[in-house]
Amino acid sequence: MDPTFHMSPQQFREEAKRLIDWIAAYHEQIERYPVQAQVAPGAVRAGLPASPPVRPEPFDAVLRDLEQKIIPGVTHWQSPNFYAYFPGNSSGPSVLGELLSAAFGVQGMLWVTGPACTELEAHLLDWLVGMLGLPQQFLSSSTGGGVIQDSASSSSLCAILAARERATNFASNTQGCRQPLVAYTSSQAHSSIEKDVKIAGIGSQNLRLIEVDSSFAMRPELLEKAIEADKRSGLQPFFVCATVGTTSTMAFDPLPEIGAICRKHGLWLHVDAAMAGPAALCPEFRYIHKGMDLADSYVFDAHKWMFTNFDCSCFYVADRKALINSLSVVPEYLRTQASATGEVTDYRDWHVPLGRRFRALKLWFVIRHYGVEGLQFHIRRHIQCAQLFLGHVNNDPDFEVAAPPQLNLVCFRLKGADELNQKLMDRLNKSGELYLSHTKLNGRLVLRLCVGQTMTEERHIERAWQAIRREASRLRETQAKSLAMD
Amino acid sequence: MDPTFHMSPQQFREEAKRLIDWIAAYHEQIERYPVQAQVAPGAVRAGLPASPPVRPEPFDAVLRDLEQKIIPGVTHWQSPNFYAYFPGNSSGPSVLGELLSAAFGVQGMLWVTGPACTELEAHLLDWLVGMLGLPQQFLSSSTGGGVIQDSASSSSLCAILAARERATNFASNTQGCRQPLVAYTSSQAHSSIEKDVKIAGIGSQNLRLIEVDSSFAMRPELLEKAIEADKRSGLQPFFVCATVGTTSTMAFDPLPEIGAICRKHGLWLHVDAAMAGPAALCPEFRYIHKGMDLADSYVFDAHKWMFTNFDCSCFYVADRKALINSLSVVPEYLRTQASATGEVTDYRDWHVPLGRRFRALKLWFVIRHYGVEGLQFHIRRHIQCAQLFLGHVNNDPDFEVAAPPQLNLVCFRLKGADELNQKLMDRLNKSGELYLSHTKLNGRLVLRLCVGQTMTEERHIERAWQAIRREASRLRETQAKSLAMD
Repeated sequence: MDPTFHMSPQQFREEAKRLIDWIAAYHEQIERYPVQAQVAPGAVRAGLPASPPVRPEPFDAVLRDLEQKIIPGVTHWQSPNFYAYFPGNSSGPSVLGELLSAAFGVQGMLWVTGPACTELEAHLLDWLVGMLGLPQQFLSSSTGGGVIQDSASSSSLCAILAARERATNFASNTQGCRQPLVAYTSSQAHSSIEKDVKIAGIGSQNLRLIEVDSSFAMRPELLEKAIEADKRSGLQPFFVCATVGTTSTMAFDPLPEIGAICRKHGLWLHVDAAMAGPAALCPEFRYIHKGMDLADSYVFDAHKWMFTNFDCSCFYVADRKALINSLSVVPEYLRTQASATGEVTDYRDWHVPLGRRFRALKLWFVIRHYGVEGLQFHIRRHIQCAQLFLGHVNNDPDFEVAAPPQLNLVCFRLKGADELNQKLMDRLNKSGELYLSHTKLNGRLVLRLCVGQTMTEERHIERAWQAIRREASRLRETQAKSLAMD
Repeated sequence: MDPTFHMSPQQFREEAKRLIDWIAAYHEQIERYPVQAQVAPGAVRAGLPASPPVRPEPFDAVLRDLEQKIIPGVTHWQSPNFYAYFPGNSSGPSVLGELLSAAFGVQGMLWVTGPACTELEAHLLDWLVGMLGLPQQFLSSSTGGGVIQDSASSSSLCAILAARERATNFASNTQGCRQPLVAYTSSQAHSSIEKDVKIAGIGSQNLRLIEVDSSFAMRPELLEKAIEADKRSGLQPFFVCATVGTTSTMAFDPLPEIGAICRKHGLWLHVDAAMAGPAALCPEFRYIHKGMDLADSYVFDAHKWMFTNFDCSCFYVADRKALINSLSVVPEYLRTQASATGEVTDYRDWHVPLGRRFRALKLWFVIRHYGVEGLQFHIRRHIQCAQLFLGHVNNDPDFEVAAPPQLNLVCFRLKGADELNQKLMDRLNKSGELYLSHTKLNGRLVLRLCVGQTMTEERHIERAWQAIRREASRLRETQAKSLAMD
């Protein structure tokens, strides 16, 4: 062993290549594993020693424990049979980009601490404006720009903070959030909006959850009524979050109408397209961004549906000064000559953390490997897979579609009680063959199948449907027997 | 090419192994590069095409651009000649852990979406309680526990939020931050505390920056006076952040005294040991944690000085319920049976973002590869290197030590004007031989040399000192000539 305990470059080469082979084999064999980990709570910890090793251990021992102790506790998000929640998809080039980023170990808090980290990121986010048909105000050559954050939750928090500061003439940063601010989103918005409103000191009772129509989209006339009522009460409406692709059903809030209301009343419009955004890579789905020219900020997650491993949330603002002025604190030890010229971007002022990884590398690897055409191919394929599944649900009298299907998400249920659907989901997830999750719509439990994993193809959808049918039949039989015995 | 545009497992094996060789060679040759990137603002972007590729590109083309277009813009944080700011160190096992994490692509927001992601993390953070001599209240088997966040900025924000909610009986989450809360830290605390106080809606005018003594440590008697004065004014003191190893000078606030004041007045004590924490791996430096039994929360960054690549900020709370109750929002689509039992940890309630990577893997790889002894070896070696440098400064009549030296940081200056020191630093950084940063102490510009990069050894310190001496002599000569010409 190296007397300095380091892994020598030669050892790194050897161990890394073994790990590469392990990873390639893992991906080749991923369908052999149950999608959802089947371990009991505490089982993983029970297999680990109570104390850390005092002496160095060989990499062999770590790899052995990985297989024996860690793998049983892994839920396989990269399995093509993963349909739960929203995907967190990835790809070979993305993994290699993350590897390179770790090897550089660049911390790009300031331009000078990572010029390439900063400039490649700004450049790619400009590329994406064109790729997704986003409005010009989000380009860095305009008044705005984009930045990579860890998650849509964090991105939306920054939107709320910039809106809060703009609405209070930057008084809430100094005096605290004393103003009677009110934020608006739909009853179907992501839970992170409530979390962010709490964090920002605005208070959840000052967040209005606007009711939705039968397609689960925000009703703009109710939004305007709420704004007007709050104004009459002496409150200060300041922020609206519209969702393009809600978590429960992939509903689209009507941006043109909501945007017009925001303009009329002087409110910041933030658009959460965390999941659905990449659909706009394809011209035929670009309608989801209609009305985006009225938005002050926008977020989509390349780590959900653009083959770039978590974390890679892409956040845009139309007025970068509003964001920077809200988040910038410059102590002496972070002053640099480059920053003083005003010619460079210091991304630490674009989000909560100071430090930041070189996340642009993985996004760059992905876009160059697939090309725009390759990305479009997969978005279309996933949507076709969802259509295929939808056809099966529609053609089966035992099942019903539970919400208007959109893009790559199908909400469905077995006709009957919630309990039956809960049992169906539990059995399927317990089987390890596929992984679904649920929501509640109009008080009823509904199953969600979201197609977004990198390797999911039609054959997986067919198998998923067969498994769902099979378990549903078994449940019906059990139910019939238990009724007969009564 | 694969008609599906994917990188096949075989292609992944080949490209990944080429990249591994590239990375190993990069680390072997890293000292050939200028530490700080020498590019002008905009130069990296100028080399990139205005539009993304429509068709897929071969990996060769990407690697070529990496060398020609990206590398010149990389500031080499992993160079042994990097002494600026605080380090962001890394190691072979850490890079491999990050690689594996990317390959799994697990998103561990809930226990069930990544049991191993959650349990390995909780287990390692318990290990670290023992390794760093932290108090028992931070163990997950106690009332507290630890979690990995992206940065100390984010960790401290969570401490402030939990403290805010505890102080207001959870009213600020619902009503907004209307209460006259006051937070305290020293004038030498990290800028993230001010940023976090602003984000949380408390307002920077309600953050008291307590003056420091001649060693730049907080004066506890002034803290108590400030608390008492605020109470008399009808304000509500709620939070103190003590720093163990300040950014400018590595000063240590006196925890026992500050803790006693916090107990007496019922304030949340948060300890920011982002940089210095890992020194406590060695029994002889564990004094830095004296008084920690009085802390409500604690953060140190394994990504600064524990050979684990950014991001890996380790955050502990003594009362996990206070944290979880502050950050938990549970929509239907995130409800699970495992969570309902209360037997499992859902780490999404421990930080701002919902999603999270499997960051424990890299920490696990590092601890097992080095063992506690290997980690101690390097902490000691870095501190010895700083001592070596300190000796040179002390023995040279042209230089002076500018703050009490602590652990691995030396603050020093060339005797003379600030301008001279600014020029000295700029020349050194421009030479590419080493990378320093600065701060201001008592109104004077001071240079900082922090030894924390994984591969830094005595020979690098000797070379750094020679370069500093050489540039200082040249500056003196130029100065003498210009005086002679006057």
